[in-house]
Amino acid sequence: MNRVPDSELVLVPGGTLITATPDDGRALAITMARHSIHNIQPDLDILKGGRPNYSTNPDSLVAVSQVIAIEFQTIAAANGYWRG
Amino acid sequence: MNRVPDSELVLVPGGTLITATPDDGRALAITMARHSIHNIQPDLDILKGGRPNYSTNPDSLVAVSQVIAIEFQTIAAANGYWRG
Amino acid sequence: MNRVPDSELVLVPGGTLITATPDDGRALAITMARHSIHNIQPDLDILKGGRPNYSTNPDSLVAVSQVIAIEFQTIAAANGYWRG
Amino acid sequence: MNRVPDSELVLVPGGTLITATPDDGRALAITMARHSIHNIQPDLDILKGGRPNYSTNPDSLVAVSQVIAIEFQTIAAANGYWRG
Amino acid sequence: MNRVPDSELVLVPGGTLITATPDDGRALAITMARHSIHNIQPDLDILKGGRPNYSTNPDSLVAVSQVIAIEFQTIAAANGYWRG
Amino acid sequence: MNRVPDSELVLVPGGTLITATPDDGRALAITMARHSIHNIQPDLDILKGGRPNYSTNPDSLVAVSQVIAIEFQTIAAANGYWRG
Repeated sequence: MNRVPDSELVLVPGGTLITATPDDGRALAITMARHSIHNIQPDLDILKGGRPNYSTNPDSLVAVSQVIAIEFQTIAAANGYWRG
Repeated sequence: MNRVPDSELVLVPGGTLITATPDDGRALAITMARHSIHNIQPDLDILKGGRPNYSTNPDSLVAVSQVIAIEFQTIAAANGYWRG
Repeated sequence: MNRVPDSELVLVPGGTLITATPDDGRALAITMARHSIHNIQPDLDILKGGRPNYSTNPDSLVAVSQVIAIEFQTIAAANGYWRG
Repeated sequence: MNRVPDSELVLVPGGTLITATPDDGRALAITMARHSIHNIQPDLDILKGGRPNYSTNPDSLVAVSQVIAIEFQTIAAANGYWRG
Repeated sequence: MNRVPDSELVLVPGGTLITATPDDGRALAITMARHSIHNIQPDLDILKGGRPNYSTNPDSLVAVSQVIAIEFQTIAAANGYWRG
Repeated sequence: MNRVPDSELVLVPGGTLITATPDDGRALAITMARHSIHNIQPDLDILKGGRPNYSTNPDSLVAVSQVIAIEFQTIAAANGYWRG
């Protein structure tokens, strides 16, 4: 198996939900969503084989964006919404 | 690749979840949802190629509206619901 | 393009999430969900062309009702659940 | 059009999210979900025509149960989870 | 009609969201999700007829697990996350 | 029936939602989501038979990642977001 690199399997990169800015929090949400998928399916060839399908299919893109929105809810709450 | 402009890739436009009004918050929710998708698929030609499908398909429109509703939950909480 | 009227594009009708009653809050949730869709697809002919499909398809009706439920979560929290 | 009775269109039956018991709250969640659908599609013949499909299709039943779960989150929060 | 037993129709078994342990809370989430479905479709023969389909279809299993996750959010909040 | 081992059926492994780190909390979210599915379908042969399908289908992977995101919301709240 052509395994995804270990760095792509870290469940919470950086080990904390706290980020400096909303933008960083959003980037963390995207990474956490991607790493979930890598933990379920760590075979890079299968992942790459599927990418042309979901990343060009509008409904799949919307589904991914929903997962990001849910992860971001958690991260934003963790950071007190960066109210400052 | 015909890449989406950089401005369409900013994860949290304005760098804050705080907005002056509910209407501005709602507009931010829509933009954040769209920019998520641009970050996953930054090829403008593929995005434009898919748009006629999802934007005329009622079920796809409902799926997009759900992502907006979830993003808005976060933004509304961040703003203390603009209770005033 | 046969554009939806401007009133159908207002993101948060009334400009506030605060309503007098739960019933008014629920009505606002329905309107906000509908206006999201109008902002993504403002062509009335396309919207009307799709309506016979989603409004008679039980699964589509359930999907719409889920978006309303999510919008209502936000509005109910904004209003302190109208505990009175 | 064979319109659903007016009582089936009330968005928040009883006009409040506050209920005496969790069971009553759950019943309200089910009713609110159903009345959402009636407001989108108030034609009883179309609703009845669709029912044999969604109510015997396991995936549709699961979708309905998800909407009920979301409505119940709101109602349970409104009632302080009936902690007593 | 071969109706599900009355015990399978109780919306909130035990009449409370409060449980002794997280495990009990999780079991309640599963039961509440199942009883929602029984209230929408109380015909045991139809339910049993559909079970071989959804319980062997991976996507249906995932959909059910999502409803359980949502119910559990409510129950966990009700119990102060059993921090105690 | 080739039943999943008892350890795979524990609803909340460890009996608590409290974890030392965000990473541990994320791992718990993944385990809880998997064990939900095992409780609905405890036949290992059926589960293994379905795995090649959902774990190679991008849309199914996204659906699983959404359940993990929802479980994680609960666990993160339980842990006060590990703010430290």
